[in-house]
Amino acid sequence: MALIHHPVVDKNGQTIAAAVTALDLHDIARVSKTFGLDAFYVVTPLEDQQELVRRILAHWVTGVGAQYNPDRRDALSLIRLATHLEAATADMAGRWGAAPVTIATSARRSSNNLNFDDLRSVVMQERPALLLFGTAWGLAPEVMDRVDFRLDPIEGGGGYNHLSVRSAVSIVLDRMWR
Amino acid sequence: MALIHHPVVDKNGQTIAAAVTALDLHDIARVSKTFGLDAFYVVTPLEDQQELVRRILAHWVTGVGAQYNPDRRDALSLIRLATHLEAATADMAGRWGAAPVTIATSARRSSNNLNFDDLRSVVMQERPALLLFGTAWGLAPEVMDRVDFRLDPIEGGGGYNHLSVRSAVSIVLDRMWR
Repeated sequence: MALIHHPVVDKNGQTIAAAVTALDLHDIARVSKTFGLDAFYVVTPLEDQQELVRRILAHWVTGVGAQYNPDRRDALSLIRLATHLEAATADMAGRWGAAPVTIATSARRSSNNLNFDDLRSVVMQERPALLLFGTAWGLAPEVMDRVDFRLDPIEGGGGYNHLSVRSAVSIVLDRMWR
Repeated sequence: MALIHHPVVDKNGQTIAAAVTALDLHDIARVSKTFGLDAFYVVTPLEDQQELVRRILAHWVTGVGAQYNPDRRDALSLIRLATHLEAATADMAGRWGAAPVTIATSARRSSNNLNFDDLRSVVMQERPALLLFGTAWGLAPEVMDRVDFRLDPIEGGGGYNHLSVRSAVSIVLDRMWR
């Protein structure tokens, strides 16, 4: 999976680069490890934000945090930095021999959405798959427009669709693997 | 549901009172709202931590945050402060006419666990139900011993069972309502 910090939209629909949140890295790495993902790409073009990610990883993966909490080390070891979405897909192509199928997530339903049953079929194919999650107010239209699939939104029945990205990742990965 | 800050255990199994994390309140309130819960009890006996919760609610439910983000207000409005678990169950009894069935969650499997299918049957009964989640390293044994049910842990197949409480709540509520 990839957590995209740019291009995403703000409250007013403008394309921005969002800041990295440390807790996103921890929570999402732990969920990714729980459900057996091979990699968790943190995508940001901002050099200072990349440096923040490197410092977090230096502490928890190779520094004193790794001794203090080996379970956290195992989870955060899944993280790979990427400057853009294309860098993440190129990295996957290099590692697994084929460019991934890309699947965008959104709180909004669009045409030709993929449902969760079909998601399982897609990720079980030979080709690697990359699930995209947007920070801030979600993935920018330019990302939504060029992915292979758009996943159904998570709906709880009451019409409220404002989950944190941490909750959305947790629910999507759980639904995918059960 | 209730998010318990005491009694919970630390890394070494000692009973402690954990600090309140602001992001727990936001993330869990948003998931609770998504899945139609009636209340989200934040349980802490520490006066300074109760004050922190009150300040967060003052900003987002009645203050400037409520105008800035009405969706966040709707979610955080579900939060009720309770000094102890008994205060939360007493509040529920007063509101809904009967003491709730209590269901504890844990990353560890214990005897007589309730599975997720049976969880749905329990919460669909006439009597109100209260799901308990522990912060820090989880609910203390004294809580686990006196609840009506203990829910199955969330398992991803690989044996890694170190989800954040935010992820655990998200997955349990999603599984419960689908």
